[in-house]
Amino acid sequence: MPRLPILEWIKTYNQSKLSDDTVAAVIVTIMLIPQSLAYAMLAGLPPEVGLYASILPLVAYALFGSSMTLAVGPVAVVSLMTAAAVSQVATQGTPEYLGAAILLGLLSGVILMGLGLARAGFLANLLSHPVISGFISASAILIAFSQLKHVLGIPVNGHDLPAIIDDLATHIQETNGPTLIIGGLSIAFLFWVRSGLKPLLIQIGLSSGMASTASKAGPVIAVILSTAAVSLFALNQFGVSIVGVIPNGLPTPALPALDWSLARELLPAAFLISIVGFVESVSVGHTLAARRRERIQPNQELIGLGAANIASGLGGGFPVTGGFSRSVVNFDAGARTPLAGVMTAVMIALTALFLTPLFEFLPKAVLAATVIVAVLSLVDLKAIHRVWVFSKSDFIAMMTTIVTVLGIGVEAGIIAGILVSISFLLAKIARPHFAVIGQIPGTQHFRNADRHQVLTSEKVLAVRLDEMLYFLNGHTFEDAVNQLLNTNKNLTDLVLLCTAINEIDASGLEVLESINERLDSQGIRFHLSEVKGPVMDRLDRVGFKAHLTGQIFLSHYEAMCALDPDCESNGHVRSARP
Amino acid sequence: MPRLPILEWIKTYNQSKLSDDTVAAVIVTIMLIPQSLAYAMLAGLPPEVGLYASILPLVAYALFGSSMTLAVGPVAVVSLMTAAAVSQVATQGTPEYLGAAILLGLLSGVILMGLGLARAGFLANLLSHPVISGFISASAILIAFSQLKHVLGIPVNGHDLPAIIDDLATHIQETNGPTLIIGGLSIAFLFWVRSGLKPLLIQIGLSSGMASTASKAGPVIAVILSTAAVSLFALNQFGVSIVGVIPNGLPTPALPALDWSLARELLPAAFLISIVGFVESVSVGHTLAARRRERIQPNQELIGLGAANIASGLGGGFPVTGGFSRSVVNFDAGARTPLAGVMTAVMIALTALFLTPLFEFLPKAVLAATVIVAVLSLVDLKAIHRVWVFSKSDFIAMMTTIVTVLGIGVEAGIIAGILVSISFLLAKIARPHFAVIGQIPGTQHFRNADRHQVLTSEKVLAVRLDEMLYFLNGHTFEDAVNQLLNTNKNLTDLVLLCTAINEIDASGLEVLESINERLDSQGIRFHLSEVKGPVMDRLDRVGFKAHLTGQIFLSHYEAMCALDPDCESNGHVRSARP
Repeated sequence: MPRLPILEWIKTYNQSKLSDDTVAAVIVTIMLIPQSLAYAMLAGLPPEVGLYASILPLVAYALFGSSMTLAVGPVAVVSLMTAAAVSQVATQGTPEYLGAAILLGLLSGVILMGLGLARAGFLANLLSHPVISGFISASAILIAFSQLKHVLGIPVNGHDLPAIIDDLATHIQETNGPTLIIGGLSIAFLFWVRSGLKPLLIQIGLSSGMASTASKAGPVIAVILSTAAVSLFALNQFGVSIVGVIPNGLPTPALPALDWSLARELLPAAFLISIVGFVESVSVGHTLAARRRERIQPNQELIGLGAANIASGLGGGFPVTGGFSRSVVNFDAGARTPLAGVMTAVMIALTALFLTPLFEFLPKAVLAATVIVAVLSLVDLKAIHRVWVFSKSDFIAMMTTIVTVLGIGVEAGIIAGILVSISFLLAKIARPHFAVIGQIPGTQHFRNADRHQVLTSEKVLAVRLDEMLYFLNGHTFEDAVNQLLNTNKNLTDLVLLCTAINEIDASGLEVLESINERLDSQGIRFHLSEVKGPVMDRLDRVGFKAHLTGQIFLSHYEAMCALDPDCESNGHVRSARP
Repeated sequence: MPRLPILEWIKTYNQSKLSDDTVAAVIVTIMLIPQSLAYAMLAGLPPEVGLYASILPLVAYALFGSSMTLAVGPVAVVSLMTAAAVSQVATQGTPEYLGAAILLGLLSGVILMGLGLARAGFLANLLSHPVISGFISASAILIAFSQLKHVLGIPVNGHDLPAIIDDLATHIQETNGPTLIIGGLSIAFLFWVRSGLKPLLIQIGLSSGMASTASKAGPVIAVILSTAAVSLFALNQFGVSIVGVIPNGLPTPALPALDWSLARELLPAAFLISIVGFVESVSVGHTLAARRRERIQPNQELIGLGAANIASGLGGGFPVTGGFSRSVVNFDAGARTPLAGVMTAVMIALTALFLTPLFEFLPKAVLAATVIVAVLSLVDLKAIHRVWVFSKSDFIAMMTTIVTVLGIGVEAGIIAGILVSISFLLAKIARPHFAVIGQIPGTQHFRNADRHQVLTSEKVLAVRLDEMLYFLNGHTFEDAVNQLLNTNKNLTDLVLLCTAINEIDASGLEVLESINERLDSQGIRFHLSEVKGPVMDRLDRVGFKAHLTGQIFLSHYEAMCALDPDCESNGHVRSARP
């Protein structure tokens, strides 16, 4: 695996790719500027920090990342997680808060890089689809509520939904009229841009792709118009909160002050942010790569995102990851290589150097409106319904995640989701499906006697265990076999069909031996059929075959033919089970 | 399920059972007296507490337990766990220490009872066989080392092996000669009784069972001889530590002082003690019940042990459970019903009332010797080797348990064992076995093309996934399928044989749909074969069949016959894979 994917794609770089990448970079930059400012605000940080987090990380990702079109930078969920983590250790608005956010970015980068080098990308698989989906929906709701304060112009400090709602209710009568008008108009405008502008543009002759990309300029238009309005009518003197003076220039890249006890405190949050950011980024990357028949390499992605976050920490930014809407825009705008990201970074850097005075009169309500409209599209109610229909366990895991995120917080939510998913998985394994099987007449195929019309033998009982035979279910399986022995007398043989026994551990081995002994004491031989190769290899290591009173058959049909004297190849008659 | 098993067995109680039970009760009492004193000492408690823990619990178990022959009382591992837990919250020798131990018994009883009523006995399945075996071996080593101080007559306070060894090394030169002689002789005698006495008794004409039971009297003989020697020669004046004056009488059953904050502190330990005690007890109960074709009911056992521990707490005792050697003696001595336990309880009560002066000069070194000899038989090195051969994952779980118990403590050890086992289980599921399959010539049976000489088709690729399709492995499976598509061109169909897919969760469903889409975009139809009933039910709920580009076949043979034009029933020819 190449450690520096840039060495691959740079070889075939040419004029045509350069012009495509340049167009994409301009479009992404226009989109990224308001997003950077808004997500910095969501993270509780000064707006310029959002710009800083959109410069070096993009360059680092271009060097180390494996996706051709992923656009990294501040994203909503990670910014929310940053706010939740950092406000545990520092007060918003203090230099300590900023320092902790920068350290969090650095830590997150080191963790991602470490996981990548250890090829531990599989850890992201701990997050099931319903947990991720629930987590994102709940985070989106939490973000939308947390941003309402800016739209209303009132103070709200809560970090969970009940606290936020409580604060909103307490201060609702302090709502600032001009702020609400600006915020409300922005939200309405942005929603219209999302749903109404694109069809309009197509109607007037733009291609669907062009129209789609152009409609992503909504936030920028809102920013320009509202900034102009505030500055013209001095609305900030009527209580409209504005971004204010942003220092011109760029921070000198530097290692943040390393406070080890603070780092230890932030470590769990950094880990969760890393995993969530990785999952979000990889799912975007997968989606886009699949469209062009490209592939992303999860472990290389970890290294790319790790480098991006380390760069963010060194460059005075906060945790970043690949953003969904931004990457789609990059893709649709025609980006061919990560060089588009480098060019975006240069343009953001120029913005930070020369254009920040333009943002002085930008109302915070508009930034909040862009966040609210962006995140509400992440709430996926259909997914909740679909999971409910498909699997109650998955639904419970999903709802646990949602309720915990809203009621307690993002970190607790993600942990609760993982723990509930794993518990259900263990519970599933602990209660395996177990069936008496018989032959489908006229075939060599054996199925569950309770579900299919099959032929069974009085003397040779055939059963199937639909699970790995493991410590979690060994005793349950043994009990099930014992119960069968009580109801089936006159048996001479018991055959266990092992097609679904994907693994046997030491506890499972004990159970097989105990069943073998018990059957032996009752004069019944114990056979296995269709044991999988890897499982058989393992049983062979301890000489299991030597203890087994019966045989191990390659196919179950072979077993039944060998054991049941009534059986004739493909045409034996046995009593059908009801 | 009967809540009071006594109501069942008491109906058929008769003279013959009474005389059998009485004999067993006498023999168990003789064995239990020194054990009770010794395990109380191991738990850091006054010796009489061991007697108290051997009275009411036996009566309570007789009422509620489901095993006919299990003998409950103080046992080595649970006593060690009690010492570890209680010494966290109180200093040995203080009334607070005793109070905490009694409270621990009560808590443990409430937990066991609660688990039983909630039918949560399956929780014990979290402990894999290798973890239990490792835990018991390591605890035995820890116990043996912790008791060496009594044999040497030196002070040792450590609770983990390094600390104990450190203390032993520091104080070894303070060894008390007479104590060492008594302790050493006792150990030698007890080992000889275990290995040498039984053959001797058989030689002089006793039956094997009688000889075996008689050889269990070793500790009592050692106790009598050593007590006599100490009292005759006043060895206690030469530094031999003795049990001392034990108060005559019995405590009035009472609810211990309920200190809620202490209870909360002891709760995790009480939970672990409950689980370990339950596992130990159930495995003894299973073994004995199987010998007589009886059955024990795990959830009823929880209630029985819960009642026993609540009774222990109320009667001034500490946590108890079913002991292995004692139950075997009870069984071999011919106990037929739990009434044997009630009679044992009465005899222990009489002992506590009238015989305690006899124990005044009993040297602690002898009690320690009985503990050491008893626990060393629990160290199972063969099991370690067997697990090593069978499964490296199980071996690592076992060694983690052993090392953690010895190095950190019993509670940490059991938790580490569970966590490592679960991690390996998750890792196994995350890396499923996946195979391209083909037909075994002349059969309707399909196996791994890498392991068997099989027939495969150029156009119809058949694969088998050997695992539930779950959030842990969905992406891995998808990657594996994609990789296959890159190496197999010209495919028209892909058939997934689902015999080993025991469950599909919402994440797995997404993966199936994503594979279906990807195949569709390449003009390849996607089919499933031999989908298990419960899995098919679930797929039907979301109308999966409607999206699937291909079909779902009852048997894989049927699928291949339907899809492959070259196939003729039972005799088609295809290129064999190397």
